[in-house]
Amino acid sequence: MQATLSELAVIADARLEGDGSTLISAVNTLSDAQEGDIAFLTNKRYRLQLQQTRASAVILHDDFASDCHVPNRLIVDNPYLAYALVASYFAAEQTQFSAGIHQSAVIAASASISPGACIEANVVIGENAVIDDGVFVGAGSVIGNDCKVGAETKLCANVTLYHDISIGKRCLFQSGAVIGGDGFGFASDNGRWVKIPQTGSVRIGNDVEIGVNTAVDRGAINDTIIEDGVKLDNLIQVAHNVHIGANTAIAGSTAIAGSTTIGSGCTIGGCSGIIGHLEIADNVHISAMTIVTKSISSPGQYTGNMPALPHGDWSRNMVRLRQLDDIARRLKQLENGGT
Amino acid sequence: MQATLSELAVIADARLEGDGSTLISAVNTLSDAQEGDIAFLTNKRYRLQLQQTRASAVILHDDFASDCHVPNRLIVDNPYLAYALVASYFAAEQTQFSAGIHQSAVIAASASISPGACIEANVVIGENAVIDDGVFVGAGSVIGNDCKVGAETKLCANVTLYHDISIGKRCLFQSGAVIGGDGFGFASDNGRWVKIPQTGSVRIGNDVEIGVNTAVDRGAINDTIIEDGVKLDNLIQVAHNVHIGANTAIAGSTAIAGSTTIGSGCTIGGCSGIIGHLEIADNVHISAMTIVTKSISSPGQYTGNMPALPHGDWSRNMVRLRQLDDIARRLKQLENGGT
Amino acid sequence: MQATLSELAVIADARLEGDGSTLISAVNTLSDAQEGDIAFLTNKRYRLQLQQTRASAVILHDDFASDCHVPNRLIVDNPYLAYALVASYFAAEQTQFSAGIHQSAVIAASASISPGACIEANVVIGENAVIDDGVFVGAGSVIGNDCKVGAETKLCANVTLYHDISIGKRCLFQSGAVIGGDGFGFASDNGRWVKIPQTGSVRIGNDVEIGVNTAVDRGAINDTIIEDGVKLDNLIQVAHNVHIGANTAIAGSTAIAGSTTIGSGCTIGGCSGIIGHLEIADNVHISAMTIVTKSISSPGQYTGNMPALPHGDWSRNMVRLRQLDDIARRLKQLENGGT
Repeated sequence: MQATLSELAVIADARLEGDGSTLISAVNTLSDAQEGDIAFLTNKRYRLQLQQTRASAVILHDDFASDCHVPNRLIVDNPYLAYALVASYFAAEQTQFSAGIHQSAVIAASASISPGACIEANVVIGENAVIDDGVFVGAGSVIGNDCKVGAETKLCANVTLYHDISIGKRCLFQSGAVIGGDGFGFASDNGRWVKIPQTGSVRIGNDVEIGVNTAVDRGAINDTIIEDGVKLDNLIQVAHNVHIGANTAIAGSTAIAGSTTIGSGCTIGGCSGIIGHLEIADNVHISAMTIVTKSISSPGQYTGNMPALPHGDWSRNMVRLRQLDDIARRLKQLENGGT
Repeated sequence: MQATLSELAVIADARLEGDGSTLISAVNTLSDAQEGDIAFLTNKRYRLQLQQTRASAVILHDDFASDCHVPNRLIVDNPYLAYALVASYFAAEQTQFSAGIHQSAVIAASASISPGACIEANVVIGENAVIDDGVFVGAGSVIGNDCKVGAETKLCANVTLYHDISIGKRCLFQSGAVIGGDGFGFASDNGRWVKIPQTGSVRIGNDVEIGVNTAVDRGAINDTIIEDGVKLDNLIQVAHNVHIGANTAIAGSTAIAGSTTIGSGCTIGGCSGIIGHLEIADNVHISAMTIVTKSISSPGQYTGNMPALPHGDWSRNMVRLRQLDDIARRLKQLENGGT
Repeated sequence: MQATLSELAVIADARLEGDGSTLISAVNTLSDAQEGDIAFLTNKRYRLQLQQTRASAVILHDDFASDCHVPNRLIVDNPYLAYALVASYFAAEQTQFSAGIHQSAVIAASASISPGACIEANVVIGENAVIDDGVFVGAGSVIGNDCKVGAETKLCANVTLYHDISIGKRCLFQSGAVIGGDGFGFASDNGRWVKIPQTGSVRIGNDVEIGVNTAVDRGAINDTIIEDGVKLDNLIQVAHNVHIGANTAIAGSTAIAGSTTIGSGCTIGGCSGIIGHLEIADNVHISAMTIVTKSISSPGQYTGNMPALPHGDWSRNMVRLRQLDDIARRLKQLENGGT
């Protein structure tokens, strides 16, 4: 698969400099690129590599053009986006598959599988499930009764969908993702827990990506909702009745507790936690390993972590942290003239 | 499936007000309920909805009865528990299944499967495993040699039990749960790790719920033990030789390190961590994203997190946190008459 | 399976005391050991048990020999290592398996499976995969196209390898582990996310252990790399293009963000997080639930957590933490003579 630099300029919405007929066959890093590769500068830490790269062309911002010894360039405002677009072009061919149902798959009689779908080995699909055109279901995946999987969605190997899950178009679910498990709801009866039946479901929009071993629970009565364009990384916990707004992206190992609503356009760092029944506004950005314990009504960056220190420094300060209320009171006393 | 309000009053141990012959067919929220539904008030934030709900009956505490325009009511001390009991009644029918072994399941010759069990497609069951009456094993689940699964326990799709795991009655394991993996034990041999064989097992009591993608490791020599009524949410790590007491509930993404004992009746918030070889007393409650580094001998609430602030506020205080020992020393000097 | 104490002394590189012909058939704890067992003291908290144990022999350090009423002993500098070596000897027999491919496995025609490998029920293996001698692939595991699995590596049940993954010899992957999922890379296009194709792979060395439900993502362009002897516990997130040095051990529920390099000989506590694009030196030790936000160039212990306090104590100090910048300014003012 090859393209001319002129063709890539159109794909990346870039200004072409140099020879538009240059043939490009792959994307690579500045340091590893060979002849025939296009490289990219997205982080100025690597700008010195512009002088040594063997790439046949480079994607970069105009600000760094003078550092670049390669004459063939795609000049753009957002090199990371241009890299994504060009790399997607070269990757498209690799992601194709042959439609059909593997003979080892177990498909309920009432399920409706598009002839354009690919169902791999040992897949199990339940009653009344609807699998649309261009869907890929990887080996070992289990799709429960009454699920709907929209066109061109890809479920990798060993994905689990419980019953009655609705998934939009062009989604990508990584292996081990589990959608529709019971929410964690129990009422206390004198110390013994009585289960709250989880009778809602999960509704997932279009263009959603769900990472490896991520869990999205079904709602207790109403549904858990993930809107269009949401991106969830690996090992994330999304509890029952959470609602995640469009194009919000959440990094790995984060957990969102029950009935919390997160706005659209948010980013949430890895290892974070948001407690239940909160409202997080649009365009809120949460730092890594931060716990959110109150609703957030204004966009902006929020942080609550404690970065690592050498252990001795941490230990000295941590002793004082436990004295902090006392320290504050003693300071007040001094200010009031006491000694 | 329908019930009269009088019948539900018995199920919920409630005082009936209004027309006991009212027919109820589902549980719903106050805001979404339609005719034929019973709704409930468990959080006083929603009390205004008592005046607009179209529910045919409402479960609530006597304190809010005067806010409720619906004449048919179940008055209880614990509306959340009453909701759980009524909802369980309506959900019971949906959770029934047909006994039998799917032809694609691979069952060892020496395994003993009750005729009243349901074994779904592509399940694999090892030698000498014993599956009791009323057990449900979801598609793709793997049960190792010598496992025992007690009556009416349900394993959802793609659950994994290693060998020699013992599980009680009426348990519910969500998809992706893995029971009996090797504990994380290695001895250092001049920088190289030598594995400690994990030859213990896992013993799980009755009425235990284990969440999606939660891991419970087998013991090194003795067993990992989870007592009756324990509820574990999703993506929890339970290390080798942990012992969790009866009716303790642990929220998602929490981790318990090796050989720690947790009492009964505890609750542990999400994203928390408890280090190894500790003893946590009964009725201890740990807040979300809290690390426990010492044993806890008294019941009560314990917390160690740092709630999110706007990033600038956090940053200013975090700089000072690193100066805290210095601040404390300078304060002491002032108190001693220095300036 | 039995061994004489003399034989075990050779295995454990120990100094034998007592009767070398004593027959030993199992390893056990000091408190549970019976006749025929060898016990061990690795933690001085248990030294009093040396006086009551019924073990036929004991592994211990010379410092505690005088506490031990059992005359048959293996005296070593590192009792934990000696325990590992002796226990491994007794466990070896249990871990043997019969080579062969279960009839329900689905193996691509172009895959190469060693006759000495064991492929369990419902395994799926893709095109051009190479499975070496002595490899064990547990039930339900899925191995993608072009994977290479080195000799004597064991994949437990329900492991998933995406395409083109390279794994060394003598590795052990626990159930639910997923290797090679897409890294989490997206470029923002006016609020909409454009996926960065993840075209790199994952290269894993020899003697690597990967825990239950742990995720190791494939690289964006270059590979994610895990060197020889690395040990990863359960529910760990390893993002794209991470590089983990030899013999580093990481405890459960930790997450490593993209493109971070971790040195060799490191230990990282559970529930920790390391943000992306950092360099962590060799022999760095990170405490549990610590976030690392900057590169670390010196070996040593680093900590950044906040241990649990009784909730009231925590609450009082946390209020002051939010006033800390103000407290520091007021202290400075007093030092400057203000009141």
